[in-house]
Amino acid sequence: MPEVNAYVTNAPKGGINFKKVQINDDEGNVTLRPVLTGICGTDRGMVRGALSFAYNPEGYAYEVIGHESLCEVIDSESELFSKGDRVVPIVRRPGDCPNCRIGRPDNCSDGKKHEAGITGLHGFMRESFKEFDYNLVKVLDNSLGNVAVLTEPMKNVVKAFEVFDRIRTRFVFENERSTFLGKHAVVIGTGSEAFLYAFTAVDYGFATHMINRHPIGPTETKLCDTFGIEFIDSSKNPSFPENFKIDLLVDTSGDPGTIFKYIRQMNHNAIAILFGTNGKAPSTEVSGEDIDFIIERNITLAGSVDAAMIHYLKGLDYLSKWNRRYDGILNTMITKEFKPGDVDLFSKKPVGEIKSVIKWN
Amino acid sequence: MPEVNAYVTNAPKGGINFKKVQINDDEGNVTLRPVLTGICGTDRGMVRGALSFAYNPEGYAYEVIGHESLCEVIDSESELFSKGDRVVPIVRRPGDCPNCRIGRPDNCSDGKKHEAGITGLHGFMRESFKEFDYNLVKVLDNSLGNVAVLTEPMKNVVKAFEVFDRIRTRFVFENERSTFLGKHAVVIGTGSEAFLYAFTAVDYGFATHMINRHPIGPTETKLCDTFGIEFIDSSKNPSFPENFKIDLLVDTSGDPGTIFKYIRQMNHNAIAILFGTNGKAPSTEVSGEDIDFIIERNITLAGSVDAAMIHYLKGLDYLSKWNRRYDGILNTMITKEFKPGDVDLFSKKPVGEIKSVIKWN
Amino acid sequence: MPEVNAYVTNAPKGGINFKKVQINDDEGNVTLRPVLTGICGTDRGMVRGALSFAYNPEGYAYEVIGHESLCEVIDSESELFSKGDRVVPIVRRPGDCPNCRIGRPDNCSDGKKHEAGITGLHGFMRESFKEFDYNLVKVLDNSLGNVAVLTEPMKNVVKAFEVFDRIRTRFVFENERSTFLGKHAVVIGTGSEAFLYAFTAVDYGFATHMINRHPIGPTETKLCDTFGIEFIDSSKNPSFPENFKIDLLVDTSGDPGTIFKYIRQMNHNAIAILFGTNGKAPSTEVSGEDIDFIIERNITLAGSVDAAMIHYLKGLDYLSKWNRRYDGILNTMITKEFKPGDVDLFSKKPVGEIKSVIKWN
Amino acid sequence: MPEVNAYVTNAPKGGINFKKVQINDDEGNVTLRPVLTGICGTDRGMVRGALSFAYNPEGYAYEVIGHESLCEVIDSESELFSKGDRVVPIVRRPGDCPNCRIGRPDNCSDGKKHEAGITGLHGFMRESFKEFDYNLVKVLDNSLGNVAVLTEPMKNVVKAFEVFDRIRTRFVFENERSTFLGKHAVVIGTGSEAFLYAFTAVDYGFATHMINRHPIGPTETKLCDTFGIEFIDSSKNPSFPENFKIDLLVDTSGDPGTIFKYIRQMNHNAIAILFGTNGKAPSTEVSGEDIDFIIERNITLAGSVDAAMIHYLKGLDYLSKWNRRYDGILNTMITKEFKPGDVDLFSKKPVGEIKSVIKWN
Repeated sequence: MPEVNAYVTNAPKGGINFKKVQINDDEGNVTLRPVLTGICGTDRGMVRGALSFAYNPEGYAYEVIGHESLCEVIDSESELFSKGDRVVPIVRRPGDCPNCRIGRPDNCSDGKKHEAGITGLHGFMRESFKEFDYNLVKVLDNSLGNVAVLTEPMKNVVKAFEVFDRIRTRFVFENERSTFLGKHAVVIGTGSEAFLYAFTAVDYGFATHMINRHPIGPTETKLCDTFGIEFIDSSKNPSFPENFKIDLLVDTSGDPGTIFKYIRQMNHNAIAILFGTNGKAPSTEVSGEDIDFIIERNITLAGSVDAAMIHYLKGLDYLSKWNRRYDGILNTMITKEFKPGDVDLFSKKPVGEIKSVIKWN
Repeated sequence: MPEVNAYVTNAPKGGINFKKVQINDDEGNVTLRPVLTGICGTDRGMVRGALSFAYNPEGYAYEVIGHESLCEVIDSESELFSKGDRVVPIVRRPGDCPNCRIGRPDNCSDGKKHEAGITGLHGFMRESFKEFDYNLVKVLDNSLGNVAVLTEPMKNVVKAFEVFDRIRTRFVFENERSTFLGKHAVVIGTGSEAFLYAFTAVDYGFATHMINRHPIGPTETKLCDTFGIEFIDSSKNPSFPENFKIDLLVDTSGDPGTIFKYIRQMNHNAIAILFGTNGKAPSTEVSGEDIDFIIERNITLAGSVDAAMIHYLKGLDYLSKWNRRYDGILNTMITKEFKPGDVDLFSKKPVGEIKSVIKWN
Repeated sequence: MPEVNAYVTNAPKGGINFKKVQINDDEGNVTLRPVLTGICGTDRGMVRGALSFAYNPEGYAYEVIGHESLCEVIDSESELFSKGDRVVPIVRRPGDCPNCRIGRPDNCSDGKKHEAGITGLHGFMRESFKEFDYNLVKVLDNSLGNVAVLTEPMKNVVKAFEVFDRIRTRFVFENERSTFLGKHAVVIGTGSEAFLYAFTAVDYGFATHMINRHPIGPTETKLCDTFGIEFIDSSKNPSFPENFKIDLLVDTSGDPGTIFKYIRQMNHNAIAILFGTNGKAPSTEVSGEDIDFIIERNITLAGSVDAAMIHYLKGLDYLSKWNRRYDGILNTMITKEFKPGDVDLFSKKPVGEIKSVIKWN
Repeated sequence: MPEVNAYVTNAPKGGINFKKVQINDDEGNVTLRPVLTGICGTDRGMVRGALSFAYNPEGYAYEVIGHESLCEVIDSESELFSKGDRVVPIVRRPGDCPNCRIGRPDNCSDGKKHEAGITGLHGFMRESFKEFDYNLVKVLDNSLGNVAVLTEPMKNVVKAFEVFDRIRTRFVFENERSTFLGKHAVVIGTGSEAFLYAFTAVDYGFATHMINRHPIGPTETKLCDTFGIEFIDSSKNPSFPENFKIDLLVDTSGDPGTIFKYIRQMNHNAIAILFGTNGKAPSTEVSGEDIDFIIERNITLAGSVDAAMIHYLKGLDYLSKWNRRYDGILNTMITKEFKPGDVDLFSKKPVGEIKSVIKWN
C-alpha cells in the first residue's frame, strides 16, 4: 500500500487534483501501471460536479478518477498474467442481483454494482495499483499498441449491439436476402464512441451515416472515407431527403431534441439505441403524434449502459480487425496525449478531439 | 354481391352513415354475418376525421368501418368452417415484405399491408360479407359467448407481451427464483385494452396496478378485485410511494405527459410498452435527465401495434381461461349494446364504457 | 424434529420401508403434511436400485423418497403462507453455478444441485416436514383439488416446451400464417407425462398424436377424445403413412430403438424432445444415414430434465385451465389411490395406471 | 448461350466428364469466369454415385458439378458489380416456404429449394456462366486472394454457430464472468471444414481441440499452433482425461460411432453440432444410458446444413480477419491446385489434403 500519484476528485461535488494518495488495494493479485488512460465525458462531468450519482469509495473522502485504461503488468501472483502483459481492467464490479451473479453487472437489477472511477470504487488514473486477475482482460494482439486504450469505450458498443440483436428478434429485421443491404444506420455525434458505433454498423452491413451540427476535420473525414461512412453536417443539411428512412439510430449526444427529431425519420421496425448522457441538455417537446409514430411502426428505443467482460474481449477483437485491415488507422483516433499531472485536460476539450489520453511512464 | 346495410365513412375525412352498399367480395369462400362488433377509439377517430393515415379501398369513395368483430358463418365453401361456426376475422392483410411473407403483417416492414375498416380494406360493420377461410379464426370454446368479441383487442395484448418476452432476453428480467414475484406492472388507462393488459400481467405473476386520473365504477372495481389488481386514482394519489419501482409499464392512453411521468418511476431493466395512440394529446417536455435515466437503467420503450393470427388464437385461449375461472366475469366488460343503425355511438362515449358493441339482428 | 412415519430407501442401493424417522428440518419456516404424493418411474427405479446417480442426504444412512407432492400447510412462520394453504414443494435445490444462481437449478451447469427424494435431500413421502417458504408453490385454484398433485410432472413439460421455444428460434418453425396449423406433434408413451406433453402440444395448435406398442383403455381413450388427440397403437400400425411428417417429437419412453425409428419420420426443421429415461432399455443401431438425415433437415434433438419455479407456476395454470374447460377430466388421470404404509406400490405397477398416488390421512 | 467446357456428372448415378456443354443461363445479369473452384466430399460423393438426393436440372440429362467457387466478373449489366470484381456465387436458391421467403433457403421447410451443382441446378465448374446479381457475394478485401475460395465452406460454419447461439439461449452457457473461459470445444476431423470450425471456436473463447484417428502433417500442425488449438491423435490417446468435459462438440466426420463416443464425454448443458455427412459410415450402438446421459445433462444435438447470404458475408469477414492477423496463413489450407480437365481429382484424395482446388487459367 505505497503512496502513489493519482488524479482525485471529490464525488459528486467535483474538482480535480493530481496528488499522492494511499489506497488500500493490497488484496489484488496483479500489480499494474497505466500506459494510457482515456478521458471521456463522464470524467469531465465528474470534475465539473455534474454527475449526481457518483460517490466516493467507502472510507475515503475522495475518489481516484479514470475508467478508460490500458495498463501493463509489473508484477503478478496470478498464473493468468505475466510481467509485461498489457491488460484492460474492467469498470463495473458486481453486486448480488441475478444479473450481477452471472457476470452481467452491466445489467445490474438493483443498482448495487460499483464502477471504478465513478461510483464507490477507485479508478485507474494512478501510477500503480493492484487488481484481481478476474477483473483484467489481456490484450493479445500486440499490433494494437496504444489503440487498446479504446477497449473500454468499444465494449459499450459491443454490448449495445447485443441489445440491438436481442430486440430485433421481435421481427424479421433483415431484408428478403437475410442481409442488411438497403438498411440505414445513423449515428448522432462524432466523438470516439460515435465512431466506434459507426464502424460496427458498417460491419453489420448497414449503409452508415454520422451526423453532427458542425463540419468535421480531416482526421474524422479520413476515418469516414476509410470505413465508407457518410458524414452529414446538419447545420448545412437540416433535414434528410424525404424518403430517407433510419433503421438503426444510435445517439451519443444525450440531447433529447436531436433524438426526437430523428425518431420521426425512423422506418418501420426501427431500433434506437440511446447511449450518450447529457443531463444538462435542454428539454424537447414530445407530442402525441410522436408516440403514435413509435407505435404504428413498432419502433423500439433502448437505453444501454456499460458492458460485461465478454464485450471487452469482443471489443478488442473488433479493434484488432479494423486496425489491421486499415493499416493502423485507429491510431488517428487518439488525437492528443497529455502528461500525468496536467489537470486542465479535464476542463478544456482540445480542438478536434476524438480521444484524448494521458500517457503515463 | 348483394346490397347490404353497412356503416360507412369517407376515410380519412370522416363522417358516418348507415346505408345500403354493394361491395365486391365474391371471391371469399366463407359467408359471414356479424354477431357483435366492438367500437374502439380508432373507429371514433376515423369518424371524427382524426386519423390521417386511414384511406378508402381502391375503387370506392367510402369505406365500411369496423375491425373488432365476432361473426357467424352462414355459408361455407371451405372445409375448415361450417354453417353456425363462430369466427373472428383478422384485421391486417399482408403485403410482400419479409414479415408479411411469414404471416406477420403486424410487423410489416414497409407499410404496404392493409387493415380492414381502416386502411384500404372494407371493415366488418355490414350485415353480411364474404371472406377467405385463411383470414378467419374459429371460436372453439362455446362458453365464451359474446366475450369472443374481445378477441380483436386481446390479440394486441398477446402480441405486445410477445414483444416484452423478446426484449427481456437482453437481461435476466426474472427474480433470483426465476419468477415475477416482487415485480410490478403498471397499466395506464382503464378501457378494455387496459384491462386485458392488466389481466395478462397478473397471469405472468406481476403485482399489477391500473392507474387513471379519475375514480372507477363498480364494474371496473369488481374486475380489479377479481383478478387481484390494485387501482390507483392518480387524481387522489398524484405520486407513487418513493420506493415503488415499475418493472413493466403499459400505456393505453397515448398521452406523452403521462408516459414520461411514469418512466421516471421505472426500475433497472424495466420495459415500457407503448400501445395507446392519441395524436391530439398535448405535448410534454422530455429532459436530458429523462434520457440519462433511461440509459443508466437499461430501460426499453417499445411501440407495439396489431397482431398476427397466432395472437388471435392465444387471445381466445386467455379469454376462455379467465372467463371460466372467474364465472363469466368478462361479460361485464361489454358495458353497452347498441342496435345497428344507431350512429351516435361513434360520437358519444357512454358513461362507464369499457366496451360498447353493436348487436346485429 | 419429531419422529414421523416415512417411506425410506437406501440410495442408490434401493429397497423400501415405511417406518419412523427423525429428520433434521427445523430450519424450515412452513410445516407441511402431505395430501397426495405421486409415484413415478424414478421412485420405482430407486427402490429397484436402478438409479446409480441417487444418493442419501449427508449424515443419513437412508433417504426419504418422493418428489411428486401436494401438501397442506399446517403451520407457518412465513407471511407468504397460511394454515390450510395447499402447496407443492419444488424438487431441485440450487448449487452455485451460474444457472443455479438465477433460480434455474434445472439447468445446473456442474451437477452440484440436489433433488428432494433423489439426490442428497430427503423427499416428501413423510407424515409431516418443514420447508422454507421459497421452496413452495401455492395452489391458488381450489377447483383443482387432487389434480394439483400433477404439478410436479407438469412442470417438466412446461420447461421442455420452453426449450422447444428457444430452439425453434433457429428458423421460422410456424407456417406462413404464423400458426402451428398443419404441424404434427407425436408423443411416444401413454403415461402421465406423455398425456401432459400431448395436452400442451394441442394447446400450441399441433395436430397431436400419441403412440404406444399396445392398445389403451377407456380412460386414456376418453382423454384423447376430449383433447382431440389421435392415439396410434404401433403394434397394429407399425408405420406412419408415407407422407406423414413429425414436426415435434417427444419421447417419454427412454427407448433408443423407438426414438431413432421415429426420427427418420421427422420433417425439415423438426425438433425432438428427449425426456423419458430408461437406462435398461435395449440399445439400437444408429447409421450414417440417420446422421445424414438429421443434418440435411436441420433437425434438433434436445434432452430436457426437471424445471424451475416458474414452470411449477405455469404448470398449475395449465392444469387449472384444462380441468375447468373439460369439466374436471384431469381427475381421471389419477387412476389409483394407495394408503400410506403400502409398499408394494413401488414394485407393482397397477393395470391401467396413468398416475398412482398415496393418499395421506 | 455459348458452348463452354464444364465438369458434368449424371445425378444421382454419378461419373464425371470434362466436356463442352451449352447451358441456358442467359437471364443472368452478371457474366462470370471461375478463378478457383474447391472440391469437397459432396462433389466426390456425387461422382461416386453415393448421393441419392442429387438430381439433374430440369430438361438436362446431366448436371454441371461444383458449388465451392471464387469467380471474376467479366461482364455486368448490374450496377452492383463491375468487371474485375471477385465474387462468390451462393449455392442454395429458395423455394416458397416461410424460410425461403425471407432469404433462408438453408432452413427450407419443405425441401423445395435447389442447390447449385447438387440438386437440380447447374454448378460452377464451367469456363463461364451468367448469374443474377442477387446470388453473388462480393469479395471486398483484396488481400484475401485465393483464400476467398474458402467462403463457401466457411459460410456453413457461420450458420452452425448461429444455431449454437440460438440453442444456448436455453440456459446460461457462459461462465460466471460472462465469457467462455474454461469451456472446451472439440472438433472431430481435420479437413477444411474442421479447421474453420476450430478457428471459430477459438474466436468465441473456447479452449479448442481437434481430434482425428491419425497424426497430422506439418501444415495442419502449423495451423493448430498458430490459432492455439490442441490436436489429439485418438489412435494414440484413445480417451480423454477423466475429468475432461466437452461443452461444444462439432462433428465433421459423419461417423455415428465417433459422435456417440464423444457425447458421453459432454458436460452439462453441452451442445453438439452435427455437420459432417457420410451415409456409408458404419452404424453404432446407442444405449438407454446414452439417452439418459443426454437428458440428465440437458444436452442438445443439432444438425446444421448450408447457410444463407448473411453467412457468406460474415464468413468472408472471418477469413479476412484471420488471414491478416496470421500473415496469410489461410493460404496454406489450399494444399493442391489442379488444372481444368483433370478428372482424377474427384476419385483420388491427395495426401495431406486440406482443400484441393481447380485453378482455372
